[in-house]
Amino acid sequence: MTRFALTLEFDGTPYLGLQRQPQGMTVQNAVEDAVKAFSGQDVRMQSAGRTDAGVHAYGMRCHVDIDTHLPPFRVMEAINAQIRPNPVSVVKCEIKPDDWHARFSCYERSYIYRICNRRAPLTVERDRAWQIPTPLDADAMHDAAQILTGEHDFTTFRSAHCQSKSPIKTLDQLDVKRGKDEWSEWVFVEARARSFLHHQVRSMVGCLAYIGMGRWTENDLKAALEAKDRQTLGLNAPPHGLYFVEASYPDE
Amino acid sequence: MTRFALTLEFDGTPYLGLQRQPQGMTVQNAVEDAVKAFSGQDVRMQSAGRTDAGVHAYGMRCHVDIDTHLPPFRVMEAINAQIRPNPVSVVKCEIKPDDWHARFSCYERSYIYRICNRRAPLTVERDRAWQIPTPLDADAMHDAAQILTGEHDFTTFRSAHCQSKSPIKTLDQLDVKRGKDEWSEWVFVEARARSFLHHQVRSMVGCLAYIGMGRWTENDLKAALEAKDRQTLGLNAPPHGLYFVEASYPDE
Repeated sequence: MTRFALTLEFDGTPYLGLQRQPQGMTVQNAVEDAVKAFSGQDVRMQSAGRTDAGVHAYGMRCHVDIDTHLPPFRVMEAINAQIRPNPVSVVKCEIKPDDWHARFSCYERSYIYRICNRRAPLTVERDRAWQIPTPLDADAMHDAAQILTGEHDFTTFRSAHCQSKSPIKTLDQLDVKRGKDEWSEWVFVEARARSFLHHQVRSMVGCLAYIGMGRWTENDLKAALEAKDRQTLGLNAPPHGLYFVEASYPDE
Repeated sequence: MTRFALTLEFDGTPYLGLQRQPQGMTVQNAVEDAVKAFSGQDVRMQSAGRTDAGVHAYGMRCHVDIDTHLPPFRVMEAINAQIRPNPVSVVKCEIKPDDWHARFSCYERSYIYRICNRRAPLTVERDRAWQIPTPLDADAMHDAAQILTGEHDFTTFRSAHCQSKSPIKTLDQLDVKRGKDEWSEWVFVEARARSFLHHQVRSMVGCLAYIGMGRWTENDLKAALEAKDRQTLGLNAPPHGLYFVEASYPDE
């Protein structure tokens, strides 16, 4: 058996999420079915993150064990050939030692959340960003975001379905930056941590949006964090603005 | 009657093209239906360009005449509200004098063509760029592109369905630039002219791609141009990489 580390890019729009589910199509199904199609083997994919329905990825890291002598480049080509027409691609494939684990060896995850801050509904970027018509104060969002960095009990920012044993997490980075192109204003939120609770990034982004709109002050955000109560959450941002962008490993 | 100039953004994927057609849905249908829905009036939209099925736009300019006292902002909001769920948005709306014409007053059109130059199939960017797996030499493409600038008979680069009276056009700019993000190499082609023949940009991009792959030399491109014969065309690039980005008017 050879352990292949895969770097995946996917459009999360048509999926119930990354992780295999009995009710419908997931990214994991698509990859495992593609491996089966060229190798005849039933594999079980492991991944650095388990993204929700509608969430996208540029640099999701996964691994599968396949009994093959094919070099990594051929495995990548074979999966990409078989996975069509699914909007999932292997952009990189490497052989790793058997004790390398896409989920358990990963020491840091990074997400980017894209907000298109304009009145006109999205067209080319539909399902690729969260459109907020109210002008956002990105500087105020960035300042408030610093309240959330460091070690906290993130119960307020945690989905009721979260399976994590503890609500205590250390958030290494939460930056808010403004962008601009000819037709739109943009706001980007970058989040980095060893691991996140279920819905944590979307919940933090939702509350930062409230700050940006002027509906919340920094004190409201502090109070919500300190309440350790999901009921005090301002807003859970929609999934389609969220991108898993990087997973870090000690050997790399 | 008031003449409203609209700046449109649209995802061309679900449409037969911009211009109204009896066989199915077009961008023009979507806009005219939206105007009818809020004003009760049958309008006929005029536009700076008539893009093909699958071609996108960021800054398409159009106009419609509506018998209304609504200010432009309200007209924009009303069209955007009624046009959903079509992936077409009005990003700007202004009142213009009656002799201002989106098509006939326009003195320059700009297009961008996006090529994603990588082996892995596109996911998030699917239908938003042309994926070419062979490494492209963007410098060679740019140098060859200069053969096509200036005044020429572009018969080779013209669709059989082109309705233009003359195949002679003046191409003001044809630049090829390389781009890069963390996961992909990109090649962008920028084309600017008073007007283009039907399929001209896609046909030029297809031949430049041949140059970039090393399948064609500059002499092959020169010979194709000079042949003034559609049969000598190397390749017509697919529509989904093409974006209409700007129309210019003397009063602006």
